[in-house]
Amino acid sequence: MALIGDTEYFKGIGEIMYEGKESDNPMSFKFYNPEQVVAGKTMREHFKFAMAYWHTLCGTGGDPFGPGTKEFPWATATDPVEAAKQKADAAFEFVTKMGFDYYCFHDYDLVDEAKTLSESEKRIQEIVAYLQQKQEASGVRLLWGTSNCFSHPRYMNGAATNPNFDVVARAGAQVKIALDATIALNGENYVFWGGREGYMSLLNTNMKLEQDNIGRFLNMAKDYARSQGFKGTFFIEPKPMEPTKHQYDFDCATSINTIKEYGLENDFKLNIEVNHATLAQHTFQHELQVAANAGMLGSIDANRGDYQNGWDTDQFPNNVLETTEAMLVFLKAGGLQGGGINFDAKTRRNSTDLEDIFLAHIGGADTFARGLLIADEVLRSSPYESLLSKRYSSFDSGKGASYTAGKLSLTDLYDYAQEQGEPEQISGKQELYENILNQYS
Amino acid sequence: MALIGDTEYFKGIGEIMYEGKESDNPMSFKFYNPEQVVAGKTMREHFKFAMAYWHTLCGTGGDPFGPGTKEFPWATATDPVEAAKQKADAAFEFVTKMGFDYYCFHDYDLVDEAKTLSESEKRIQEIVAYLQQKQEASGVRLLWGTSNCFSHPRYMNGAATNPNFDVVARAGAQVKIALDATIALNGENYVFWGGREGYMSLLNTNMKLEQDNIGRFLNMAKDYARSQGFKGTFFIEPKPMEPTKHQYDFDCATSINTIKEYGLENDFKLNIEVNHATLAQHTFQHELQVAANAGMLGSIDANRGDYQNGWDTDQFPNNVLETTEAMLVFLKAGGLQGGGINFDAKTRRNSTDLEDIFLAHIGGADTFARGLLIADEVLRSSPYESLLSKRYSSFDSGKGASYTAGKLSLTDLYDYAQEQGEPEQISGKQELYENILNQYS
Amino acid sequence: MALIGDTEYFKGIGEIMYEGKESDNPMSFKFYNPEQVVAGKTMREHFKFAMAYWHTLCGTGGDPFGPGTKEFPWATATDPVEAAKQKADAAFEFVTKMGFDYYCFHDYDLVDEAKTLSESEKRIQEIVAYLQQKQEASGVRLLWGTSNCFSHPRYMNGAATNPNFDVVARAGAQVKIALDATIALNGENYVFWGGREGYMSLLNTNMKLEQDNIGRFLNMAKDYARSQGFKGTFFIEPKPMEPTKHQYDFDCATSINTIKEYGLENDFKLNIEVNHATLAQHTFQHELQVAANAGMLGSIDANRGDYQNGWDTDQFPNNVLETTEAMLVFLKAGGLQGGGINFDAKTRRNSTDLEDIFLAHIGGADTFARGLLIADEVLRSSPYESLLSKRYSSFDSGKGASYTAGKLSLTDLYDYAQEQGEPEQISGKQELYENILNQYS
Amino acid sequence: MALIGDTEYFKGIGEIMYEGKESDNPMSFKFYNPEQVVAGKTMREHFKFAMAYWHTLCGTGGDPFGPGTKEFPWATATDPVEAAKQKADAAFEFVTKMGFDYYCFHDYDLVDEAKTLSESEKRIQEIVAYLQQKQEASGVRLLWGTSNCFSHPRYMNGAATNPNFDVVARAGAQVKIALDATIALNGENYVFWGGREGYMSLLNTNMKLEQDNIGRFLNMAKDYARSQGFKGTFFIEPKPMEPTKHQYDFDCATSINTIKEYGLENDFKLNIEVNHATLAQHTFQHELQVAANAGMLGSIDANRGDYQNGWDTDQFPNNVLETTEAMLVFLKAGGLQGGGINFDAKTRRNSTDLEDIFLAHIGGADTFARGLLIADEVLRSSPYESLLSKRYSSFDSGKGASYTAGKLSLTDLYDYAQEQGEPEQISGKQELYENILNQYS
Repeated sequence: MALIGDTEYFKGIGEIMYEGKESDNPMSFKFYNPEQVVAGKTMREHFKFAMAYWHTLCGTGGDPFGPGTKEFPWATATDPVEAAKQKADAAFEFVTKMGFDYYCFHDYDLVDEAKTLSESEKRIQEIVAYLQQKQEASGVRLLWGTSNCFSHPRYMNGAATNPNFDVVARAGAQVKIALDATIALNGENYVFWGGREGYMSLLNTNMKLEQDNIGRFLNMAKDYARSQGFKGTFFIEPKPMEPTKHQYDFDCATSINTIKEYGLENDFKLNIEVNHATLAQHTFQHELQVAANAGMLGSIDANRGDYQNGWDTDQFPNNVLETTEAMLVFLKAGGLQGGGINFDAKTRRNSTDLEDIFLAHIGGADTFARGLLIADEVLRSSPYESLLSKRYSSFDSGKGASYTAGKLSLTDLYDYAQEQGEPEQISGKQELYENILNQYS
Repeated sequence: MALIGDTEYFKGIGEIMYEGKESDNPMSFKFYNPEQVVAGKTMREHFKFAMAYWHTLCGTGGDPFGPGTKEFPWATATDPVEAAKQKADAAFEFVTKMGFDYYCFHDYDLVDEAKTLSESEKRIQEIVAYLQQKQEASGVRLLWGTSNCFSHPRYMNGAATNPNFDVVARAGAQVKIALDATIALNGENYVFWGGREGYMSLLNTNMKLEQDNIGRFLNMAKDYARSQGFKGTFFIEPKPMEPTKHQYDFDCATSINTIKEYGLENDFKLNIEVNHATLAQHTFQHELQVAANAGMLGSIDANRGDYQNGWDTDQFPNNVLETTEAMLVFLKAGGLQGGGINFDAKTRRNSTDLEDIFLAHIGGADTFARGLLIADEVLRSSPYESLLSKRYSSFDSGKGASYTAGKLSLTDLYDYAQEQGEPEQISGKQELYENILNQYS
Repeated sequence: MALIGDTEYFKGIGEIMYEGKESDNPMSFKFYNPEQVVAGKTMREHFKFAMAYWHTLCGTGGDPFGPGTKEFPWATATDPVEAAKQKADAAFEFVTKMGFDYYCFHDYDLVDEAKTLSESEKRIQEIVAYLQQKQEASGVRLLWGTSNCFSHPRYMNGAATNPNFDVVARAGAQVKIALDATIALNGENYVFWGGREGYMSLLNTNMKLEQDNIGRFLNMAKDYARSQGFKGTFFIEPKPMEPTKHQYDFDCATSINTIKEYGLENDFKLNIEVNHATLAQHTFQHELQVAANAGMLGSIDANRGDYQNGWDTDQFPNNVLETTEAMLVFLKAGGLQGGGINFDAKTRRNSTDLEDIFLAHIGGADTFARGLLIADEVLRSSPYESLLSKRYSSFDSGKGASYTAGKLSLTDLYDYAQEQGEPEQISGKQELYENILNQYS
Repeated sequence: MALIGDTEYFKGIGEIMYEGKESDNPMSFKFYNPEQVVAGKTMREHFKFAMAYWHTLCGTGGDPFGPGTKEFPWATATDPVEAAKQKADAAFEFVTKMGFDYYCFHDYDLVDEAKTLSESEKRIQEIVAYLQQKQEASGVRLLWGTSNCFSHPRYMNGAATNPNFDVVARAGAQVKIALDATIALNGENYVFWGGREGYMSLLNTNMKLEQDNIGRFLNMAKDYARSQGFKGTFFIEPKPMEPTKHQYDFDCATSINTIKEYGLENDFKLNIEVNHATLAQHTFQHELQVAANAGMLGSIDANRGDYQNGWDTDQFPNNVLETTEAMLVFLKAGGLQGGGINFDAKTRRNSTDLEDIFLAHIGGADTFARGLLIADEVLRSSPYESLLSKRYSSFDSGKGASYTAGKLSLTDLYDYAQEQGEPEQISGKQELYENILNQYS
């Protein structure tokens, strides 16, 4: 049930209900039916949809060519903590009207940063106390917290990778406070996105030192959180570029390499964003698969990029085909490890009606629901799985099985190949697989 | 001195000599002066320039929209081994006329593949014997060998990652033969470029099994080569895409992850290609730095991509600025570990004069020589190094040094930050670094 | 009914029939129902689906990293004209089994080029005579003909834009013969795709002269064809790059500029290829709209690119969302002017079964059919059109209508703006439009 | 001589002088020697270097992931007109210390926009009066003015292409005021960059109406300016994307098409930006050549993009090779028609020292100067021009000359080709051209 504060911010909008594909009501889910069971779990459990505090409550539409366009009615108080409470009211009203169970935040999404660290910490503690009440009243939970160590000018040369130790220390202090807040709110996970952890020019950069420093930093943060009783998972969120020329956590493979290099593999997994995947010239499903292969498919930041534009457009998901291919990986990997699906997406700069925020989230949730339904049907009812098994069946027995068991040498392969002669030609049948997917869509 | 076989193929072209920048002779080096000492080594030693057999001797200019355009006078014999010997004569004539010390090959660059594995192996053994004589007569050495497990239709679904074990075995047999040839020719290194190791569609792909299979494969190859006395280094050559939609060895970071995942870190390093770096949205110097940080800066495939086109154009290097930035990394890393600089580049399809091959290699060698000279000068004479040291000096002593020594906790950072207040703003001065580079160019 | 020649090449495959979405038969149309009326025309009339001779009959799967993989049973005769007849038999068997009405060709798709121009012309005349019989027997028609002036080495520096007049003349002769063939076969249109009309390096290029030369060339070709009674439309097919670094017909806007610059606007329209659109960083629907706005939406080359790879992958269409957005433009523009939808797409290199060619075309046709059905439904039944009209309604009356009538001056705008004060903020509602499309999918 | 206002803003920095390549002074020109004559003109005359008001005086370093970092000492006054005068003082101090002759502005760079149009106009008139004095005192001139019709939220759906006529009118009023200001300051040109003239989604866009509307708008603006005595040239500045998904003025070819479509060819030329060229997948030199071929090479916005990143980075030029290739086109075209070279570039977000602004402009000016010197030398002293003439010499006489004179028909080409037989193969010699350029660098 919707949790409305002193003021109702989204007036005229009630709880968004599932009404099915035929409904003419734009303010209803056409496919996302939270309690519908798919592959053994409800959609609600599969997805754990979360609202992103930053885009939904704070993002007024500024871009490099113009300031914000959106006037948010919860952004009126002049006292920062009072304003933060209004924003929290709006947040919980929105999440509960959407029927979602989770939210995510950066520290300074919750409340504006103050002039000093102490004062900032105090503000955060105040708003955390308020959020605790809102969580209790609504049942909404914190999917993950994180710290914004990229916006403030002090981080212009990096946070944990800053060439100046004073800034590294300051980032550490900020992360400590954000961890404390996350723990206080029973946050289920904690995310690191290194927005300025990378370089603008390799010419003025000592990459090795910077990367070693971030390895140390992540270990310190993990050790501290564990010492405070945090049981959740840490996520690294890869992104290849923007705002820096090159970000150190370029993609999943790179981030897995970092996680292992610094001995973090027991505590860290990945938070995979669609638009970051495509900026790295990967598909979303590719990145999910890479993470799944490493046992690190932790969480998802749902959005979409523009296929022809080269920056982070963070649009709401609307491509059912792309999402279906992702949901195939998702289902086969057994879902997410600890995380959920956070709509790290923003309405367009010119989508200035408050209802647009709802429409966008509805479209996003429906896109994922539909992808899940199709992928499940493909896996259960189509020839897809048997085609795939057959394709790799030579490794199920005989020499192929010996190979995967590590029992053959290069000389064994040579001898076998001499005996066999030219291997049979076997079509990859990509077009058939594609047609099957489309038939079930 | 030029080693000419029964026929002189590059008639009218003598040995290419260093004549300096002012020379009007297009068939001379303007900057590459093999015996000139830079940073303690001759250019010859720094670079170990190599000719790529495939482009230089075999590449007749075909592209997806048309067949080859170039008629090579060494490609006239009908008997395959005879034709291979003519090609070898042309190869050694070219390398010695260029004054280079090395060459590189794929197995079937040397001689055409036969109908059967046995017959192919016999052909290779014959041409290897011939090459041994040519090496001895000229002093030219083999920088590395490799196996072409991507062109033949049998590899259309992958070689070591093929869904059919029979093809994996066939690839293994081929690699065994190529390793034998490399060892027989005292090859200094051995390269794996997985041209079809990747996928065309994730839909029909078991990525985990395929990647584990390649891990096994590389280990088998390494074990075999070591058992045969091979002392050189193995290189993986990253490439992000093309011919497959996604190649498993996407970039240096991904390949390092693979190398470690499968326990290959004591034997494998990286062979970095410029055009592959830029296809992966990295600069060449970035990839060199990533490899150097991991102690895996093994070898270089020199060429250049087109910044506006999205496929592997493999043009000859001509961008001195790009090469200078690469040579900064190169010099600071202490050069290459085992490898050299192989011109994996081809003259344009419409560059059909035989002399164009010389002009292209001259331009490439000069571009590297010039980059080295500038980088050395920047490091020795400009404020570059002291600016950079100063930028990171906060980690040389005090709390910063404790941090890099791993002696601080997150709480220590918090306490320190509380004490220090807002860190000083320090300009990154990127434009100054860029100006310095240009001044010394 | 299928037209089978002396040999049935696609054995075991009958005519592909519409069986609807629920059919488990992969060799049936799920959505493409040729006689189904949508928006006043049958699907057959809307689409005029055509088979591309080059990919379907000639493309054996070669790519820059390996030769062809596909063995076509119609490519066995040693006599070129005999081989050409077998290929023609396969072509008409394929087209008629698919239930399509059209085919398209390049001159030397029909029959291999001979050593001399005269001999080539003779071969083409022979095969044209044979195709005339096949057309008559089957009712299949020629959507368009074209000339391959890009594959042969003689065109390596361009055809109509070659720096050597002799090559320009040779291209002219070839186009004359191809026009004669097209006219003899009652071809409905004629296409120019300038595969080598562009440059590899601007350094050695006189762009102005080359572009003026192509302007002259197109005029000559048009004048000749008209003099021979050709009544059809000429199409330019834009492509931004590949095989050249830069192609002169970069995109629709550029090509329209060229068409007008050289006075060709009464005879020329555009043939728009999906993959060429995305290589130019446009969506397919954008290019359709640009052409439609200029009255030049002539024909479509249907395929798809890979959104993460930067070369021409020419995959079969499978993205219903993309096609739906295209079909919105298509329907609103009143369809194509003279042309049809030609599957300029190839099965993957590793799709080596003959049936894959059918599966691919089925998937492609279904994708277009589905896009058309959805787009029609969106236009007829959803709020889409009224939302869009309302968005622009300020230009329907009052000052807005005076503006579009050209009756206002800048001073009038100034005066009006002074009076009105700050304009009302109106949301663009992009997410709502996107949701509507998805609801109707 | 430097023109300093009441306060000296760039303290400790004097006039930047040419000191030559060997100078160790980072605050001197190494190559830009304003009075040096190259190809018949001084560098000063060739380049007409201009300062961009927006980046240099207003741009504090904000990006999508963080606010500005730079504290400008001229941005302290609270009264908007007073603040504007301080900024103007800083502007003229900077331009005169750099030794440049020009500046460029958007209307609201000069002074902050007010709540109402009237009040905004009044502010602009006040600052224009002040700038008139500064121009007179310094001799610095206005290269071009323009109007910022993209930042204000009212333009979120476009300015001249807005779906709401009220916004179109408001844009018209703003352009009128900006034209008045430009004329009052003897501006030599006037620029249109349509930052929001394009679409975010084609779904909600009537592209034809929007483009026709902009055609009307440009005509109105031109007519008004001419009626007020403006003699200068109008420029359209192409950009392919960003901030919109697709900008209508995609590239030079597209913009030329627009200019002609709406009958503007006697008054409009192009202002070409390097980073916009590369975002459109063109080289800078390509875009210059396209404009030159159309007689529309008007002006240049100098900067550079990042070759691996896909957004507008607007970095200062530092690539001498790229600039040399551009200067070849520039010199051969006879320079710019009316415009100059405006540094539309910004120091990096982390370049926060005031001196960085000088270093950046010095590096940019030196890069252009060096490119000019090399290009001139290549044209005068190298074989470049004769190689190029020879390449096209077949069109200088005989049938080739008849062809370019328009005297041949397709049948003539056919007859000629029949006679000639296979054309000779002629190498494009791209690598030779590239080597020549590098030798002269």
